[in-house]
Amino acid sequence: MSHPNDPSLRSFVPVDPASDFPIQNLPYGVFSTAASPTPSVGAAIGDYVLDLAVLESEGLIDLAPAFDVFAQPSINAFMALGPEMWSRTRARISELLRHDNPHLRDNKMLRARALVPMAQAKLHLPIAVAGYTDFYSSKEHATNVGVMFRGKDNALQPNWLHMPIGYNGRASTVVVSGTKVRRPRGQLKPPSADVPSFGPCKRLDFELEMGVVIGQPSAMGEMLTEAQAEDMIFGFVMLNDWSARDIQQWEYVPLGPFQAKAFATSISPWVVTREALEPFRIHGPVQDPAPLPYLKQAQPNNYDLQLDVALRAAAMNEGSRICRTNFKYMYWSSVQQLVHHASSGCAMNVGDLLGSGTISGPEKDQRGSLLEISWNGTEPLELGGGIKRTFLEDGDSLSFHGWCQGDGYRVGFGEVEGTITPAA
Amino acid sequence: MSHPNDPSLRSFVPVDPASDFPIQNLPYGVFSTAASPTPSVGAAIGDYVLDLAVLESEGLIDLAPAFDVFAQPSINAFMALGPEMWSRTRARISELLRHDNPHLRDNKMLRARALVPMAQAKLHLPIAVAGYTDFYSSKEHATNVGVMFRGKDNALQPNWLHMPIGYNGRASTVVVSGTKVRRPRGQLKPPSADVPSFGPCKRLDFELEMGVVIGQPSAMGEMLTEAQAEDMIFGFVMLNDWSARDIQQWEYVPLGPFQAKAFATSISPWVVTREALEPFRIHGPVQDPAPLPYLKQAQPNNYDLQLDVALRAAAMNEGSRICRTNFKYMYWSSVQQLVHHASSGCAMNVGDLLGSGTISGPEKDQRGSLLEISWNGTEPLELGGGIKRTFLEDGDSLSFHGWCQGDGYRVGFGEVEGTITPAA
Repeated sequence: MSHPNDPSLRSFVPVDPASDFPIQNLPYGVFSTAASPTPSVGAAIGDYVLDLAVLESEGLIDLAPAFDVFAQPSINAFMALGPEMWSRTRARISELLRHDNPHLRDNKMLRARALVPMAQAKLHLPIAVAGYTDFYSSKEHATNVGVMFRGKDNALQPNWLHMPIGYNGRASTVVVSGTKVRRPRGQLKPPSADVPSFGPCKRLDFELEMGVVIGQPSAMGEMLTEAQAEDMIFGFVMLNDWSARDIQQWEYVPLGPFQAKAFATSISPWVVTREALEPFRIHGPVQDPAPLPYLKQAQPNNYDLQLDVALRAAAMNEGSRICRTNFKYMYWSSVQQLVHHASSGCAMNVGDLLGSGTISGPEKDQRGSLLEISWNGTEPLELGGGIKRTFLEDGDSLSFHGWCQGDGYRVGFGEVEGTITPAA
Repeated sequence: MSHPNDPSLRSFVPVDPASDFPIQNLPYGVFSTAASPTPSVGAAIGDYVLDLAVLESEGLIDLAPAFDVFAQPSINAFMALGPEMWSRTRARISELLRHDNPHLRDNKMLRARALVPMAQAKLHLPIAVAGYTDFYSSKEHATNVGVMFRGKDNALQPNWLHMPIGYNGRASTVVVSGTKVRRPRGQLKPPSADVPSFGPCKRLDFELEMGVVIGQPSAMGEMLTEAQAEDMIFGFVMLNDWSARDIQQWEYVPLGPFQAKAFATSISPWVVTREALEPFRIHGPVQDPAPLPYLKQAQPNNYDLQLDVALRAAAMNEGSRICRTNFKYMYWSSVQQLVHHASSGCAMNVGDLLGSGTISGPEKDQRGSLLEISWNGTEPLELGGGIKRTFLEDGDSLSFHGWCQGDGYRVGFGEVEGTITPAA
């Protein structure tokens, strides 16, 4: 049997070479249809969703001693089964979808039940988010922000090169792609005002991030090795960390962002497994100074993963690309973030979501937020047709795409989209 | 029928006047016994736990259309039923426990099943913590910390008087009283060091707080009125926000506390209902400048609630009181905290826990943390017998007690205790 990452594998389900979802990917998500309105777990293949609850109930996927694992509104129960079962199940799904396996291919009745056209599927939040943490691990992003607010000489805070800086975010407002995002209200105090006022955010922004989905718990009081952290990572999503810059500016000293980041965080509906990303691992940037021993890593833990951001104003027919960057630029890796997160003895849970932090790159067109793209509002962005932006306006739609390019196929994440609606 | 807060009510269960749990209290918790190891919901009365799952299964408490609400490992399912049911159920429990109601009193078999001596009960975490948020709402505490680190002239940050400053904490390490707390490790960089090192925290501290337990959800994108916020508050616990001051000092700029507060947060096992605290409501400090309209409150939302902290070193037979203060000193009330928390459109969930922030008072012996008591380590605290402390040492046990004093009875919280064990 071939490894499910084998580039030569083909499925009997037709998959366009530009599709995000070839047989080498098989990401997990949660979906429902008009006919089956109860959400359950599926895997993406080409333009279809493979209904894993159907395959499990038919005995084609065996998760014993667990059962009814896929007839659930999240993938958490599946993640809880651990990395061996993740690997075995992905291999089994791959086997069932191979072009030369007649089992599902030639069973017309079963195929009709198990393969749902993606156009007919409503995609839901794939995970029950236990905790949401957001990091700040792109050196380019942290430097850009630092230069803007503190000048070139003090751009990076003294701690930044020694640990992955992060904060706890708000899990209750993590939503799936396509969910509309209402412009938040909050306390605003521009430098020109003597006292704050309360009203709609005027500097609404996005942040291009990846999210790590934690699939195994760790015990309170324990630290993690690199290998343990690696094994706990189930997969990745794209993540938009919507940010109200003006609310943030006034509230964040000394305890960090709170309401500025609490109103919405959007993620892609498909969780791409760590295993599917293996062929695209590369070394990250050289870390200098060398990390402290607990943060050292022997394995390369960055991924060559291209990321695009498009912005479509209400008056535009299609989005205009405003950023193309790559996950590989991240200074601190996901494994280092997780090791640091648990370093005090902080227990990790199945369903924890760790945002990478805004992913910017060294070039100007690789900046992953409007704060950086418009240089704090001083350099408006031209979208064509006379449309300019410094920050987001009502009706604007933001869309991220991300994929790893293989030889003749891509392992992709689909889309994470959100449209801004007016403040209440 | 008397109101369950009526001071003249008596129970057939004997209750000492110094007990925290008279019939006027009836706090909810989760317990198990050696004979019944599956945790379920109970109410405290004197030295007993009233097994509410037994009363529900016997039809003595009717929560229809919900059922099996108390045969659960948390009070979340009960909280989800809403404030009318909270009120009706408390009245029913009060009725069943009255000295002049023979129903339970004279049914020996039922009484033996329903009343469990507290000494035989193991108390568990009473809520499934959905999200944990920690505020910073004592003006005295914020001022003390500000004076220590920034001097008298800049003690309060400019935003502090305009909103309840808070940050998202880590829900996964909220533990019940009695759980041992392992000294965390982390990155430390004292001012004298050029580079950070990794090791056990040397400045381990407690913070005396109350926690608000949210019993009803709010929708993403919506704000709350004062009345709506009030209705969402189920009750209160005592809360110890363990803090690693040295880890915090190095990590917290610019995104706030992370690992310094992630290793443990202890709460009391009994959730005292908002209704039981009603007789003890008082006005908080005058707020000047006046809060913005969304934060204005018509009702008094502070409570006259006395709080004691005792510290017992391993070599001591009993704890030494190191702080006595009162919840009434808090500048921002719990309702204002909740209104602000939802102000951006942040959805609140059943089981959210909101720490008040360290409760200090105007006097020196009313300081709610060792950071303040020892003035950042410069004024060691004398515990008697030659034992001194600046910060916590291994084997130290911290214990909080809190109660509202009525006429001849007290509505109390029991204890929240934690003992420090050595770093791994």
